[in-house]
Amino acid sequence: MSTHAPTLGRMMHRPLLITHLLERAATIHGRATVVSQRPDKTRVRRTYADIGARASRLAHALAALGVTAGTRVATLCWNHEAHLEAYVAVPCMGAVVHTLNLRLHPNDLAYIARHANDEVILVDRSLLPLFAQFAAQVPSLRHVIVVGDSGPVDTSGGHRDYETLLAQAPPVPYPWPDLDENAAAMICYTSGTTGNPKGVVYSHRSTVLHSLVSAMADTLGLKDDDVVLPVVPMFHAAAWGLPYTALLTGASLVFPGPHLDAASVRDLMVKEKVTVAAGVPTIWLGLLALLDEEPGKHDLSRVRTTIIGGSAAPAAMIAGFRERHGIIITHAWGMTELNPLGTVAHLKPHLRAADAAAQLEVLASQGAPVPFVEIRHKGEDDGPPLPWDGATMGELETRGPWVADSYVGDEGEDRWTADGWFKTGDVVTIDREGYVRITDRAKDVVKSGGEWISSVALENALMSHPAVLEAAVFAARDEKWGERPVAAVVFKDGRRASDDELRAHLATRFPKFWLPDRFVAMHQIPRTSTGKFLKSKLREEHGGW
Amino acid sequence: MSTHAPTLGRMMHRPLLITHLLERAATIHGRATVVSQRPDKTRVRRTYADIGARASRLAHALAALGVTAGTRVATLCWNHEAHLEAYVAVPCMGAVVHTLNLRLHPNDLAYIARHANDEVILVDRSLLPLFAQFAAQVPSLRHVIVVGDSGPVDTSGGHRDYETLLAQAPPVPYPWPDLDENAAAMICYTSGTTGNPKGVVYSHRSTVLHSLVSAMADTLGLKDDDVVLPVVPMFHAAAWGLPYTALLTGASLVFPGPHLDAASVRDLMVKEKVTVAAGVPTIWLGLLALLDEEPGKHDLSRVRTTIIGGSAAPAAMIAGFRERHGIIITHAWGMTELNPLGTVAHLKPHLRAADAAAQLEVLASQGAPVPFVEIRHKGEDDGPPLPWDGATMGELETRGPWVADSYVGDEGEDRWTADGWFKTGDVVTIDREGYVRITDRAKDVVKSGGEWISSVALENALMSHPAVLEAAVFAARDEKWGERPVAAVVFKDGRRASDDELRAHLATRFPKFWLPDRFVAMHQIPRTSTGKFLKSKLREEHGGW
Repeated sequence: MSTHAPTLGRMMHRPLLITHLLERAATIHGRATVVSQRPDKTRVRRTYADIGARASRLAHALAALGVTAGTRVATLCWNHEAHLEAYVAVPCMGAVVHTLNLRLHPNDLAYIARHANDEVILVDRSLLPLFAQFAAQVPSLRHVIVVGDSGPVDTSGGHRDYETLLAQAPPVPYPWPDLDENAAAMICYTSGTTGNPKGVVYSHRSTVLHSLVSAMADTLGLKDDDVVLPVVPMFHAAAWGLPYTALLTGASLVFPGPHLDAASVRDLMVKEKVTVAAGVPTIWLGLLALLDEEPGKHDLSRVRTTIIGGSAAPAAMIAGFRERHGIIITHAWGMTELNPLGTVAHLKPHLRAADAAAQLEVLASQGAPVPFVEIRHKGEDDGPPLPWDGATMGELETRGPWVADSYVGDEGEDRWTADGWFKTGDVVTIDREGYVRITDRAKDVVKSGGEWISSVALENALMSHPAVLEAAVFAARDEKWGERPVAAVVFKDGRRASDDELRAHLATRFPKFWLPDRFVAMHQIPRTSTGKFLKSKLREEHGGW
Repeated sequence: MSTHAPTLGRMMHRPLLITHLLERAATIHGRATVVSQRPDKTRVRRTYADIGARASRLAHALAALGVTAGTRVATLCWNHEAHLEAYVAVPCMGAVVHTLNLRLHPNDLAYIARHANDEVILVDRSLLPLFAQFAAQVPSLRHVIVVGDSGPVDTSGGHRDYETLLAQAPPVPYPWPDLDENAAAMICYTSGTTGNPKGVVYSHRSTVLHSLVSAMADTLGLKDDDVVLPVVPMFHAAAWGLPYTALLTGASLVFPGPHLDAASVRDLMVKEKVTVAAGVPTIWLGLLALLDEEPGKHDLSRVRTTIIGGSAAPAAMIAGFRERHGIIITHAWGMTELNPLGTVAHLKPHLRAADAAAQLEVLASQGAPVPFVEIRHKGEDDGPPLPWDGATMGELETRGPWVADSYVGDEGEDRWTADGWFKTGDVVTIDREGYVRITDRAKDVVKSGGEWISSVALENALMSHPAVLEAAVFAARDEKWGERPVAAVVFKDGRRASDDELRAHLATRFPKFWLPDRFVAMHQIPRTSTGKFLKSKLREEHGGW
């Protein structure tokens, strides 16, 4: 060309930091409230302006204790305002907050805290007995800060009192540092159904982008007049990011403390005029039963939606809330490795005129990917992506700016494909609209002659037989087909069904090659410590592996 | 410490690209529609799936013409689907789309196209007469592609027909490249009230982040069941980003073509069941007058909000739409240098119980900063930020991930502070809630003894005097105070008012030191070519400069 192009202009390089969420919340949304329920069910009320000032004091206090860039600060806490303060102060000062799952065995907690190299820990006073069971096994811990959720803190043994630390800290704003947006913000460990728990590190960037997408109207749609109750614990994948999304949007927060039973959750929702609540299906099954017992008695009219994730919500529950109580369920799927949101079962416009059954079929799916989460499913690691036809099963793979690229210590490398996608371990179908339906876990699916057979679908069908109490389907080795399905069955007291009867029961719903080759009657099915079927044992004892 | 921390896990480095908006729109939101009104008022209807396929063909065609990474591809187009296709295909292939403002003088268009080094141009057939007036002055142009908006395209002179190019392109998906998220996506030139127009370059990252924040419920809140009408031209700061935000959210789009008069806009809104429309105040003043003439005749019940920006909307208009027609105005402020959204006049929850006047006072402000836009205002470049008290005036400065860091060719460096903030040139107050109110342009404010006096506020008050047709207030040099205000006044036919009368009229609203030292009666006030007061001339001739 005869002319030379001038230098192009540039946009500013401003990093995406949690610091902006905090500072914006404390100023623009300074009036939003944070209500925390204590173990004695009293409630403490603060504003986002308060949280901003207290986070600043917490950062001063932690800095005085030697916390610097990259230091791991653990929490062993229920959901409350001090936990929120740690969620913001620790990452914004450049350190890393590590949320410990208080439901784990003390030995696992010790392993995880040691593995993460936690140096400081915030512990609820009510959880000190649990802490005492593993504290000695974590030599890296230098400071223990006790949050006095259940009364005065005893500092005679070297423990520090959270509120005293804050009160003694300088009242001037903490000089939040400029950070790289890829700096680590939070560590969450996976629950580890196989092998040791794995650590996932959320960055400032991943957290901010996750919050922005969560805030979109068709994702979770938080607004400044929402009142959000995270029943999901803050040690469970950042409470699905809701605390950060609330800070971003100015939505108020209600924290339940340790009271996660359905009646307590219901009462808190009524008293605090909650508009959005989020938790695992168990909570909502309990709430639905309570509401059904006393229709119309409890005013939940402010509830805009309840978000359900963590495991699949039964369609009957979704329908029950909608039809009997006018409450819309938002069914979502995520993983610790995804910061955690991956898909949301949002009804597209063209489906809103469909009949209730067709709508329910979508609302009970895992949903379509949210913006910037890319998905595909594969039959084999090095095979092509499978068609989005709603029928072909394959393992779900995903990538995106808030999908983990590695675990702490570079463990578990086999979870990533050669071209950089994360293998979720879930076997799914994807339909032409992008709606995902989980049909099995990858390790449980039965691969027969190149075709995939869903163990979960067969189990559900078997358990609908009047004589069957429970059933577990697993893969047996087979010379011709590679694998063939076998069903372990526990019959109800005094009931029996022959193999032919069971096979006939299944034959009406599944192709012939899906039908189990054998049925093994048992008194009980072996289970893991968390109550899941121990299929590895079934495979070994009854599958010829 | 006795232990070593293991390597931290990482999140994936997935870039924020417009490509994701395009691919997501074409698949997840493939059913959303794009309606384009032609010069003859017929309407063409496509889906996002169509747009995806056509953008792919456009990229193939442009690549065949030699467009590569960084090539500038200009548009001289009204708002329609081909313009949208250029908005996505050009940046996603790594080139840069440059939207030319068809309202500029041909000499300015020539300057801008030369300055940007445009090599390819898309021109509406209906705009070929305008193009002919400056084409020869842009030697860098190699290819002219004509969009046949108004009939068949004459290709005998070397022009190419847009639809023919698309039809001849391979029907296979274009292999969109992996790009750096900071890569240039679009160039927009400022209108240039002083000096030459300046080029602002939007990156993929800035566009994506701007879209995510625009989509938030309390910003613009686009959803997949919205039908968005950008009346604001696509050559005006990316139509405020609405096309990209619509693609991200799955909202449908309606493009008005060249028909921007109030009656045409009203009819299109009714016919296409528009839910969100966006444009400058002039459009909406016209629409309000039309609606007032025929109350209830036109069904605009689907309208959720109309977004007003570009210049300040009169409070009476905002009130009129709300009270007489139930239409909520979203008043926003932005600049070409901000991609362009900066502030939105969203009513915070605690204000929703306020009386109508108090609400209007907020709704008619420029609004509070949207997430990731930081603001401050200053009395002097090297002075401290001023208090957010709703009274102290200073020049608005801003920074954020979609604020320009430089212009094309590094021109206009004096627009940035030493610590990297962009100086907007607007004089504002900021109140404690963060609501911004523009009181003047920086170059017009009168600085008297260290205090700032708003020329605009004095002018508005003077023009409310029954004898005054128009008034312009400007700074006169003053030995004691530095500057003092002087008012140029044009009286209505047959009316007069003495200096004392005018001063008394102002004295009820302003502090004594604000009152103009002198009044200069004129037959007419000198104006710029775009109709704005030419205060520089007033200062020279009547201000002692």
